[in-house]
This record gives sequence, C-alpha cells and structure tokens, in this order.
Amino acid sequence: MSNKNAVVLLSGGLDSATVLAIARAEGFQPYALSFDYGQRHRAELDAATRVAESLGAVNHKTIKIDLRAFGGSALTDEIDVPKGRDDATMASDIPITYVPARNTIFLSFALGYAEVVDAADIFIGANALDYSGYPDCRPEYIAAFEQMANLATKATVEGRFRFSIRAPLIAMTKAEIILKGRELGVDFSLTHSCYDPSSHGLACGACDSCLLRRKGFLTAGLPDPTRYIKMTKREHDDT
Amino acid sequence: MSNKNAVVLLSGGLDSATVLAIARAEGFQPYALSFDYGQRHRAELDAATRVAESLGAVNHKTIKIDLRAFGGSALTDEIDVPKGRDDATMASDIPITYVPARNTIFLSFALGYAEVVDAADIFIGANALDYSGYPDCRPEYIAAFEQMANLATKATVEGRFRFSIRAPLIAMTKAEIILKGRELGVDFSLTHSCYDPSSHGLACGACDSCLLRRKGFLTAGLPDPTRYIKMTKREHDDT
Repeated sequence: MSNKNAVVLLSGGLDSATVLAIARAEGFQPYALSFDYGQRHRAELDAATRVAESLGAVNHKTIKIDLRAFGGSALTDEIDVPKGRDDATMASDIPITYVPARNTIFLSFALGYAEVVDAADIFIGANALDYSGYPDCRPEYIAAFEQMANLATKATVEGRFRFSIRAPLIAMTKAEIILKGRELGVDFSLTHSCYDPSSHGLACGACDSCLLRRKGFLTAGLPDPTRYIKMTKREHDDT
Repeated sequence: MSNKNAVVLLSGGLDSATVLAIARAEGFQPYALSFDYGQRHRAELDAATRVAESLGAVNHKTIKIDLRAFGGSALTDEIDVPKGRDDATMASDIPITYVPARNTIFLSFALGYAEVVDAADIFIGANALDYSGYPDCRPEYIAAFEQMANLATKATVEGRFRFSIRAPLIAMTKAEIILKGRELGVDFSLTHSCYDPSSHGLACGACDSCLLRRKGFLTAGLPDPTRYIKMTKREHDDT
C-alpha cells in the first residue's frame, strides 16, 4: 500500500468508478475531481457524488466550468444525441457528442489540483477501444499530456516528483472493465452512463454510451443494474 | 494578410495586449479569450475588455472558472502579494503568485475554442525572461503543449490543420515588448498589470508585476501611463 495521494477524474460513469476503485486498490488516497461543465442533465454529477462516497474518496471536488461558451457538442448544446448506431459507425466516427478539448481541459485542472495536494499520480478513465472516435482517449495523447505536465509545474521543476497520467482502462473492453470493477466492489447501480437521460435520471438505452454499457454487461455475463426508460418514442418526446 | 482565425489569450496586461496587436498585424482575425478565475480584483478583466475592443478583436469571450477551488496562490487566495522584491529574487524564485497549472488550463480552453472557430494559431503572451520563475512560460513547455494539442483534437486527427502555439514575446525583455506594442499602436493606458490594485483599479507600484512594468517603460525610454496609488500604507489599508 502506497498511502500516496492521487487525483482521480470522476464522471460518475462506470469507467471512472472502476478507475477510482483501482486507485484505492493500489493504496492511493484518492482525491476525486468532477466537472459541472454545462451538461444537459445533473444525473451524471449526482452519480459522481454517490460513487466518490461509496468508494472512499478522501475528498471530492466539483469544478464549475462553462464548456457551452464554445458550443460545438451534443453533450452541451441543444443538438440531438444520436441513437441506435451500430458498432462499426460508433467505432469509426468522431461522434457529435465529442466536446472539443474536453479531456485536455479536465486533465489540466487535475494537474493543478494534483500539484496542490502533492499527488504525482492522476487517474483518468480514458478508453481507446470503445471510444476510438475520441482523439483524446488514445495512448499517444495520454503520453503527450504526461510529457507536457512534467514541464508545466513548480512541483516537477523543483524536482519534488514526476507526474504520471494513469489510464488503466485504456486497452480494456467494456466487459473487462465491468469484471474488473465488480472484482473491486464497485456498485454499478450507483453509476450513470447515459448521454440523454429522462428528467428522473433514467437511461435512454439507445445512445452510444447506453449501447456500449448494455453490451458490456451482456458480454461480461453479469446483470445490468441500470434503470432504463420503458417508453415508446412518442412518450419519450413528450417527457 | 492571412485572414485566418487565431485565438489570443488576453489577460488585460501589456504583454497580452501586445500579442493581440501582433496577431492583428500578421493578418489574423483574433478571437480573444479571457478568464474570470477568482482573481482578487476585476481591474484585470475590465482592462481585457477595453483592450479587445481597442485592438479590433472580432470576438471576446470571458470564461468563468474557479481556480480558487484548489487554493495555493496569492493571486486567488487571501495571501499577501510580495512587494518590493529585487531583480535577482524575482528571477530565481517561483513566486507565490504562481497559480498551479494556470497556463495549461488557459491553453486547454484556448484549444477547445480554436477547434470550434477553426483557428490553427493560438497566441499566448508567455515570457521566459521576466517570468523565469514560472515553469509554464518556458519555450520547452510551449513546445510540449503544442505537441499534445496536435494529438488531442478532432481537427488535427481529421487533418484539417495543425495547431501552432505562438508565444511571440517569449524571448523579449519588457522594454522590447513595450517598444513593439507602441510600434503596433497599443494604448498601454488601457492595460492593467498590478497584482494588488486599489479598489479603484490603481496599481500598487510595488508588486513584481508593477516593478517589471515600471522598469520596462524606464528602459524603453517611454513615459509610463500607469496610474499608481499615491497613498501611505495606512491610507491604502483603509481603502
């Protein structure tokens, strides 16, 4: 057990919950960091709070930033989230749910937080398989961020430590992530993945994120604890 | 004249004002970007607004972010700003006014904004001479950020363009910056540099930033248009 501090980016989804559990299992004192970035719904942030508490984060900060100021994404603008896309499309396209420079912005805040709490390790749930459409989920991006981070701060210039950007899920399938999380005691019913939930926080079951999650549980051979909307399209539109 | 878009980080100080003028002189359509990051005073943001307008930015956005959430800097916390330091101390120390990962956070937002407005060029007023104490003002840091940026975004992965992080002041003295700005028509009376201004926006004249500015005008042989506080310490505290 290391007893060292680590900063863990926590979205409230099952990936980052598993990452938090991994950081704990490696003996880190996790400082969880979430962002209120003008998401269209609060379900994600509520999930992050539940997950941080249930997995024993020593601290959980939510930073308010306004990514909507730029526009350009279905996650922050009034653009329709795509539904029911097949695996091939999902894997090849850069989706409309892409938020410009999101991971770079998140990791930059994590870097500032890490310097303040003396954490050399920054954990992120980036995944290159299921989200191959996102440039900032690839190993070469993570490596480049780490290199930049080690030139950016007082902590590294003074030689106190070197930053390590840890993306333990980067080469795992969703099913492998789910099995890992289960092994480490993650309660997936607390997590939230849907890009377009109902006003009560129920998952739509059809956006890319829901499809990947459902398929992950199916492949892992585990029951999916997610509460999906059971409505017709018409009822959904009227919500 | 290029007529291309560029994002320019604009603090309201004389460095970033000069950078904005340089971007204009190179024929760019400048999109200015400022941050309301929990500074202890508004004078800086008011200056940014005046400068953006006077130098013909095509757009000026101010993004609200909360760097105070981390703590750790005299610029955002209730820590005393150091006054009257000599050149040697200023040049060798990492000052208490250092904000963890600030330029990384600012450049990350600039990257997102640049991707949305199709700007391959991002300008920053980083300077390695007068601010040698700040790790994120060094050329090797700027180069590492640029490398990371070109792996981070849809625009570069799709081959639309490559990002260039432009730090035209990086090797200039304050006097050289002032002369360059004057040549390009910057009205320095609109800019604000002081870390610890009065409630009316007058400069203290004694913080690192004021000292560098005063010395810069002196060396450049130009009148300093800055309005400094002319008060006793007692009167200042009572303001």
